Parts: sequence; C-alpha cells; structure tokens
Amino acid sequence: VDGDCLGSSFALFLALKKAGKKVSVVLEERIPKTFNFLPGEYLLLDELSQDTVFDIVICIDSSDEKRINKRLFLLEGGKSINIDHHISNTEYAMYNYVDASCSATGEIVFDIINYLKIPINIDIAINLYTAIASDTGGFRYSNTTANTHIVAASLISVGINIAKVNRIIFDTISIFKLKLISEAIDNLELYENGKIAVIALGRDMIENAGALEEDMDGLSSFPRSVEGVEVGIILTERENGKIRISFRSNEYIDVAKVAMKFGGGGHKRAGGCTLETDMLTAKKEVIGAVISEIKGDNG
Amino acid sequence: VDGDCLGSSFALFLALKKAGKKVSVVLEERIPKTFNFLPGEYLLLDELSQDTVFDIVICIDSSDEKRINKRLFLLEGGKSINIDHHISNTEYAMYNYVDASCSATGEIVFDIINYLKIPINIDIAINLYTAIASDTGGFRYSNTTANTHIVAASLISVGINIAKVNRIIFDTISIFKLKLISEAIDNLELYENGKIAVIALGRDMIENAGALEEDMDGLSSFPRSVEGVEVGIILTERENGKIRISFRSNEYIDVAKVAMKFGGGGHKRAGGCTLETDMLTAKKEVIGAVISEIKGDNG
Repeated sequence: VDGDCLGSSFALFLALKKAGKKVSVVLEERIPKTFNFLPGEYLLLDELSQDTVFDIVICIDSSDEKRINKRLFLLEGGKSINIDHHISNTEYAMYNYVDASCSATGEIVFDIINYLKIPINIDIAINLYTAIASDTGGFRYSNTTANTHIVAASLISVGINIAKVNRIIFDTISIFKLKLISEAIDNLELYENGKIAVIALGRDMIENAGALEEDMDGLSSFPRSVEGVEVGIILTERENGKIRISFRSNEYIDVAKVAMKFGGGGHKRAGGCTLETDMLTAKKEVIGAVISEIKGDNG
Repeated sequence: VDGDCLGSSFALFLALKKAGKKVSVVLEERIPKTFNFLPGEYLLLDELSQDTVFDIVICIDSSDEKRINKRLFLLEGGKSINIDHHISNTEYAMYNYVDASCSATGEIVFDIINYLKIPINIDIAINLYTAIASDTGGFRYSNTTANTHIVAASLISVGINIAKVNRIIFDTISIFKLKLISEAIDNLELYENGKIAVIALGRDMIENAGALEEDMDGLSSFPRSVEGVEVGIILTERENGKIRISFRSNEYIDVAKVAMKFGGGGHKRAGGCTLETDMLTAKKEVIGAVISEIKGDNG
C-alpha cells in the first residue's frame, strides 16, 4: 500500500462513516510506519471472521485482481466497485470508475465525496492531500494537472497543516537509508562522458547500512539526479542473491526498451529487471545495453 | 538572486515587453546556472552606461535597500515601485505593493499581469511557476496557500512542462554537492536520544569535495530530515576561517532564540549565526545551547 491507496481508502472510509454507513478498510499487511499519522482505521484480512459478507466491496487504487490478491473472495458476496486511475486497469468489478486523466485515485475520491455532498473535514482532507501529494511526487511529476492543483487548493482551505504532512512523507530519512545513500555516493560511477550514472550495492554494503528493501526502492531516482546524467542505474543484490536493476532516464532514452532486453519492463523514464548472475557481470551487461541505446545502435 | 526574484523579474519583463514597453532587467551578478533555462534576458549593472535614466524602476522581491545595493542610484531618476512579499519589507519606494500573505512575489506578479490584461504565454508561465515553486519548496512549506495552488493550476493550463522545470530546480545535484552529502552523512552525530543531529564540515572536507558556498547552503535542512530529529545543526568552516552555523527545527524548538544567543537570528524553524572560534569549541557551544533549549533550561 502506498500513500494514494491508503489516503484514498481512509478518506472514503471516513466520509462514508460520516454518512452513517458501516464501513471497514481491509488490508493484507500492516501499513508502512510513514503513514501512521493518517487519520483512519483498518482491519487486517486475518482479523476478519471467515464468514464476513459485505453488501458492497470497493477496490481502491487497484489496477487488477492480482493487487486484490487474497481479498478477492470478498467481491463474490455482493456488489463490487472499482475506483482507480491506472490506465492499465482491467475493469474487473461490477461497477468500474477508472479515470486515467487523474494524477491519483485521491482526485477521484475527492469528486465522489463532493458528489455525495459529504463535507470534507480536516481528517478527510489530510488523507486526500497525502494521496495526491504521494502519487505526484509533491506536484512535481508530469501527471500533475491544473485540476490536481485545484483539488489541493480546496483541501488546504479546510485547514490542514501541509508543512507537517509534507515533512513526514517527503523529508524524513531513516538513519539506515542515510547510510545507504552515503554508500551509494561513494560507489557512484559515471560513463559515457557523464551521461550514465551507475551505483552497484552488494549485500555487504546493504547489510552494513542496516537498510531494508523499502530503503533501496527509495533510491531508484537518485543517480539520475546527478547533473548532466541522462540515465541512472542502480543495481542491488537482494537477499535471494539475485541482482535487481532499476533504470531511470531524464529526457530522451527509453529505459523500458533497455529493461525489456533483460526480461524486465516499465515506462520510458522508469524501468527495471532482475538478473540471476553476479554483480560485475550484471553491471557490465546493463551498462553496455544503455550505451547501445544512447548510440542509437539497436541492431 | 533566487528562483522567485528571477522568475518574477523575467515574467514582468516579458509581459511589459509584450505590452510594447521598453524594459530591462538589471542584476549585479550573473544568475546561478540552475536558472539558465528561464526564458528572459538581463543586463549586468556594469554593462549599463553610466548616464542611463529609467522612467520607472521596479524592485522585485527586495525587502530593503540593502538588497538593491549598488543599483540604488537608479531609483533616483524617476518613479520607483516596490513589489514584494516579505513581511520585513521597509516600503522604501514611491509606490509599494507588499503582500506578505503571498507565498512568493511570483503570486503578486501573476495578479499584476492579469490586471494589466496581458495574456500569460508559456515563457511567462515558466517564470512564474519557477518563482512560486522555488519559494514554497515545491508547494511543501507552510507559506503555501489555497491561492498558491490556484495560481499554479492557471499556469499549468498554459501548457508548461512542469516535470522538466521541477527536475531542474529540485532534482539536479552537482557531483561536488553529492560528495559533500557523503561527507556530511559520514560526519553526522546524534545527541539527546536522537533529538539533535549535528554535522560539522571543516575546510579539508569541503575542499576535498570541491564544493562551493551555494552547495553548503543547500545542505541546511539535511540533518533535520533524519527520522526522530527535532533540531538539525550544520557547522561549516568558511574560507575566512569563521564557523557558519545553521539551525533547523521541525516542531517545537525556537532555533532563532538559540541563534540569537550567538549574535545570529532567524525564524522559529530556521536560524543561523557565525562564530569566530575553532570548530570543536563552536560545536560544543551550540550543542549545549540547543540542549538547554530542549530541556526548557533558559535561565
């Protein structure tokens, strides 16, 4: 669960409760501790009694049935509604409200709550603001539209402390991630006149830093941010010994194309793949593939 | 000059030119290279012929005459206008348009251009967006209001590539700053059960990293972002041998109060001072002062 999924779910939960409905948010795992500040409650699927039947099941920010995973059986009992903004949504529910022009599912839930004429209070506003800020990288990504800002304006008017929310979701680094960043910088290598930045983190470095998988995921866009770099690559050796590789580009290189050569995928500006080889071989291969892409050498 | 000052100046320059006026932007120094992407032109004061007389001089984002510095004589010839959002503005001009409720001077310039009925094109919109995004830390600081977002919505509607602008102003790190970050992390110390984070950077470390003064200023809020930290302190040894100290707090410690004990100043959440002593003494003194403040021991 990410900020959009959680914020949108809690916002709708609080709004429907205010409207007198009996509602539960059902998750499979505990939420990341970053989001403990969000007003709302949830049940874990394991805590639900086996014979629970909901009249209506609403799936939030879930593009396909794989995301609903073990909770899929809950959709069988009654009506199902699917509210999402992913263009890849498979419209698996009885009723599907999918709008890929929205930056976040939070933008859609904002409209729904307004349509239901339920007043947006501070708790609902904090959740919707977190949902939208999370999925737009704080209004920085290209999915941010004029409407995204208009919704943010409306949420701020309710009186939320946005500085605090932004500090929690964007400007709080664990001491373990900090050490990992230091390792990452010390291991940064530039290729092709500084157009490619590569960071390779072996198990020893990751374990020395005491870093978790979530700390590593947060580093993906780090090498791309170095001045002059077009493609940033991070290779991390995972616990199972496999090498996970993430690619990010800034302007013109289609990194999904590169990732696909190694059985991975993604978008033009963000891609990834996993290799079952040693770190040095993996590094050499992916750098070679990116250089070919930069040189337009696709034969 | 920062993003708000430059973006607001260029925006008004382009708008007035479109309205058929003869306009120049006059600066004292070349702009930081981060802002080279902004559409607009400027003259350096040194390039201006000594007998230049302007009918109207407009001071942008300048709270007092010290900021106008060597350009002050230009205000003598004709009418002067002062457009700013700093609460400390001294209203030094013939006409003063100061609105401290605005997050950025860019928000005021947006209103002025609209009032003049000059259409906002892409070039003007890029400048105003940069002005506002810069001064709000990308809509993250507490100065961000509903109106800030409404203006942003209007600027995005013009069709600017906000992802690119945000990448340039927020997500581009020089290799020198990167090395300085690595040094900073390696030197980070925690005190008072992790409530205080301190980074001390001596001349040797700064010179090893090849870092500039502007790289150091960008690090100020770094120690405060460590999980659990209330007060972040960075001490940097400057070229003149003096120790520059910056304090940042998150929630409850008034760091201006601490900085004032050492002859400095600031706001509740951001303060600074300069000490003429060695690094170890400076560090010990400022940590002691922050601990006293945390313990409420103000006697």
